Amino acid sequence: MTAYQAPIRDMIFAMKAIGGLDRIAALPGNEEVSEDLVEAIFEEARKFAGDILAPLNRAGDKQGCVCKDGVVTTPDGIKQAFSAFCDNGWHAMPAPLKFGGQGLPHLVSTPVLEMWTAANLAFSLCQMLTLGAIAAIDHHGSQAQKDLYLPKMVAGTWTGTMNLTEPQAGSDLAAVRAKAVPDGDAFRITGTKIFITWGENDVADNIIHLVLARLPDAPAGVKGISLFIVPKFLVNADGSLGARNDLICASIEHKLGIHGSPTAVMSFGDKEGAVGFLVGEANRGLEYMFTMMNHARLNVGLEGVAIAERAFQQARDYALQRIQGRPIGAESGAPIAYHPDVKRMLLDMKAKVEAMRALAYFAAGGMDLAQASPDETEAAAAQAMVDLLIPVVKGWCTESAVEIASTGVQVHGGMGYIEETGAAQHFRDARITPIYEGTTAIQANDLVGRKIARDKGAAAERLIEALRATAAELESAPQPEIVALGQALTGPAARLQYAVEWVAATNAAAPAQTAAAGVPLVHQFGITVGFWLLARQAARAAELLGEGGGDAAFLRGKIALAQHFAGHVLPHAEGFFQAATRGAASVAAFDAAAI
Amino acid sequence: MTAYQAPIRDMIFAMKAIGGLDRIAALPGNEEVSEDLVEAIFEEARKFAGDILAPLNRAGDKQGCVCKDGVVTTPDGIKQAFSAFCDNGWHAMPAPLKFGGQGLPHLVSTPVLEMWTAANLAFSLCQMLTLGAIAAIDHHGSQAQKDLYLPKMVAGTWTGTMNLTEPQAGSDLAAVRAKAVPDGDAFRITGTKIFITWGENDVADNIIHLVLARLPDAPAGVKGISLFIVPKFLVNADGSLGARNDLICASIEHKLGIHGSPTAVMSFGDKEGAVGFLVGEANRGLEYMFTMMNHARLNVGLEGVAIAERAFQQARDYALQRIQGRPIGAESGAPIAYHPDVKRMLLDMKAKVEAMRALAYFAAGGMDLAQASPDETEAAAAQAMVDLLIPVVKGWCTESAVEIASTGVQVHGGMGYIEETGAAQHFRDARITPIYEGTTAIQANDLVGRKIARDKGAAAERLIEALRATAAELESAPQPEIVALGQALTGPAARLQYAVEWVAATNAAAPAQTAAAGVPLVHQFGITVGFWLLARQAARAAELLGEGGGDAAFLRGKIALAQHFAGHVLPHAEGFFQAATRGAASVAAFDAAAI
Repeated sequence: MTAYQAPIRDMIFAMKAIGGLDRIAALPGNEEVSEDLVEAIFEEARKFAGDILAPLNRAGDKQGCVCKDGVVTTPDGIKQAFSAFCDNGWHAMPAPLKFGGQGLPHLVSTPVLEMWTAANLAFSLCQMLTLGAIAAIDHHGSQAQKDLYLPKMVAGTWTGTMNLTEPQAGSDLAAVRAKAVPDGDAFRITGTKIFITWGENDVADNIIHLVLARLPDAPAGVKGISLFIVPKFLVNADGSLGARNDLICASIEHKLGIHGSPTAVMSFGDKEGAVGFLVGEANRGLEYMFTMMNHARLNVGLEGVAIAERAFQQARDYALQRIQGRPIGAESGAPIAYHPDVKRMLLDMKAKVEAMRALAYFAAGGMDLAQASPDETEAAAAQAMVDLLIPVVKGWCTESAVEIASTGVQVHGGMGYIEETGAAQHFRDARITPIYEGTTAIQANDLVGRKIARDKGAAAERLIEALRATAAELESAPQPEIVALGQALTGPAARLQYAVEWVAATNAAAPAQTAAAGVPLVHQFGITVGFWLLARQAARAAELLGEGGGDAAFLRGKIALAQHFAGHVLPHAEGFFQAATRGAASVAAFDAAAI
Repeated sequence: MTAYQAPIRDMIFAMKAIGGLDRIAALPGNEEVSEDLVEAIFEEARKFAGDILAPLNRAGDKQGCVCKDGVVTTPDGIKQAFSAFCDNGWHAMPAPLKFGGQGLPHLVSTPVLEMWTAANLAFSLCQMLTLGAIAAIDHHGSQAQKDLYLPKMVAGTWTGTMNLTEPQAGSDLAAVRAKAVPDGDAFRITGTKIFITWGENDVADNIIHLVLARLPDAPAGVKGISLFIVPKFLVNADGSLGARNDLICASIEHKLGIHGSPTAVMSFGDKEGAVGFLVGEANRGLEYMFTMMNHARLNVGLEGVAIAERAFQQARDYALQRIQGRPIGAESGAPIAYHPDVKRMLLDMKAKVEAMRALAYFAAGGMDLAQASPDETEAAAAQAMVDLLIPVVKGWCTESAVEIASTGVQVHGGMGYIEETGAAQHFRDARITPIYEGTTAIQANDLVGRKIARDKGAAAERLIEALRATAAELESAPQPEIVALGQALTGPAARLQYAVEWVAATNAAAPAQTAAAGVPLVHQFGITVGFWLLARQAARAAELLGEGGGDAAFLRGKIALAQHFAGHVLPHAEGFFQAATRGAASVAAFDAAAI
């Protein structure tokens, strides 16, 4: 496995050209944020990711986690790395200021999370889940709960989990059966939860489980689910650890990838019932979970970006050192990166990664605007844009990550199939990302039903208006290659508009048709909007080139990459468009039992 | 892991509608072949594949092979299964009559090989490699060599291998360094070979290695490579085993998948030099290997079909039993197969599998015609068609298999990521198929350079003429749905013609451009020709429906599946077309070192 070097220059370029770094830095509360600060943070993060986390990635995959009698042992070195991660303040970095975090805007913390994830996806999940639990308690817990749990969770002394899934309740949480029975001020929780990421581990002194369960008198379905804090060790009023709670890790899963991340089957209440504390009001648990959803889905979409970047770096580094054959027109043997098809694969990978990154950063910047803009209209517009794009970030970036990691294996030829090389791990690791935190179909249903049909396509039309504006602007640029990018955007933007209008017009009368169209539409959306952002990056690069500033080779690379995307990735939007808007009938026509 | 049921009805339908079973059965030498015989063979093969081989697939993956001191132990049950496989005559079945095989046409043996592969890819590779070695000796060995080795290899008492790759010589065999020094009538072979499938095993009494090596006076490059028989145990004149030869399995690889197939690093001549026997003439080794190429590549393309079918069955069976959520329009919970997007995924998988199978069987039937047709014009035309299509069969069917296996994981949701489920194994196993026996880029170079440019697109134009003829024929069919399929074929056929003409016109002047276009072209080719064959199957089904014969639901399913392909897969040909014919410039523009 090759090293991981966080692509800081690419990241900052995208933050500025797409994420609106200047605008985010000008928001109230972000007074400290500057490009210098960002560079300084990123440089330190780059070192930690590259020097500490990345080297543990392959070893952790090979060794995996072990569960014996309810005790989980993570791979060698992970406990120490996690400790250093916390000591250096990285665990707290993205958390709110008031509990010891740094309160940085999403736009700044997102690339840092990308670095951890690219360096070591399995490791990064511990922080990601803990951040989710922190946000849930912060938004919906009582002040006493916040004071008791959050400072230690922010510091990483304690970690957090999300206990949603049960064997019969996966995508459909209405089927949750875990029970909570009142017992004084607290509740007794019983039930089995599966797929609990970092549900048991040896890196934290305590684990704060957030658990969805039903009260005895709860209504059926999703409106009868409450959210509970169920700590591994009960916490005394002074914050010290009390008795061991009645919950245990029954086993961990044998998975295709992310072997360094323990995925637990959690058993609550085998004896007297696990002690749990209600978060917020009864029966509103699922609603509370949904508050965190945009952020969690952005983070998993970002996992797609990260693992794809790592797979790209692995493939590029291999292709630049492996000598094989004589490329067309060459006098002698050369690294395989010079063979046209290998070069094409590397460029496909990089162009997609940069489009995916731009999309994720665009959404992250939108979250900051929505949260902190003093202009209510701007904030509302940003929130609508974020809501619209999140299923695309999650769906498209993760589906693309699987493809990119697969291409990464292919670049290596036979060596890619050998585990020691490292490319295969990315292929295995990436495969979880389109599944957890809502499968691609769940994202597609969200996009089609809640994000397009509900407002009759209004938010999507505003986005497409922005695409058209960019196309027009680029078409009047002085540089012919930027004009060509603008021209290339026009058709796909119109196709996207047609698809959105089709969904808005069709959904109410034929929801089974739009549901069958959803995943192709996520792809069409991702490719088209991804290209829009790459074209904007290219236009900005051309502008800077015209001003004579910056690294000319780097800037020309941005233009060339957008051109490559236009030639090799963008044309595929058409196939997805056709499948989405014309392919639903054949799905409806089949009886599932006859397939 | 679910069971595997060979889809005999689909297979025979494709053999008749696409493979030209009647025509093949009428060829000289195939007098015994009839539909009844085929059904009888397939029914027995179905049982062996489903009852014996399929259940060993997951266990073999989990246990894997072990190499200790040069001795390889295959997973539990494999030795016994191989023995039963040979005893029942399955090992000999596809081999030539004269050495104990059944001499069946390719069209008939191909579906049987598909069954073994679908049931247990790792297991099937042993026979596949042995068949290749048999063919090499049969075509190029001396009569004495044939008599000495082939009967036992056909029976499976001895297995065979292909030793081509060396650490520095993968896709580029010009870099082979293994040496052969004359020693009396024989040669002493030294060198290291890697990625040797079933290179050492415990299922056979002897292993007949075919090894590429250079004679002392050999010219440099590919024209200085000779082919040698290097048996694990030397064979006495009476066929009994003699001394152990100086070769050893140094290690086996730790791979992403096909764990049940030992992939050996072979070390030849560590002591006094391994005794080898020249096959045919000196310096013609690579040429001899190329004789086997069409057949080997068809078989690996078929692996794509097989693993995709297995992944489809796994996903379908899971989706029909897993209850989750309420599908749109349903009153209560139902199996996930009834959710529109899951149904879409299953239909995508099945439609692609059937198109891939039709393509593979079409090529297999073409091989039979080329080999046995008494009409020289027909034989030559069939050979040209086979030569044209083989890189598409290999490239497209294997790339698609990876996608299909990935979709198979996705259908399972979180359970797909758990190894016990079995879907993940297909995803890992499938990933080798676009790599070995020539990567997809190698197939693409073959298609573009040797198969299109060399004859200025003549063979491809004949194929496209056939597509156009089908389109015209279908458009005048009495059934509106068949007319629609004909109409759907017209545009993609014209696009394929344009792409072929572009390659023919561009290749000589700008070979780097056509090389960059090759892989997208393989996809465009596969999708378009695959649809052509599915549309023909559908037209045949409509014809039979009109005659009132056959199982109406089955026949209507063929039409519906072609419609689904038209709506969901065929539109993607356009994106590949654009990438192939317009995307090459951006690849050429990049310096590989700057990616």
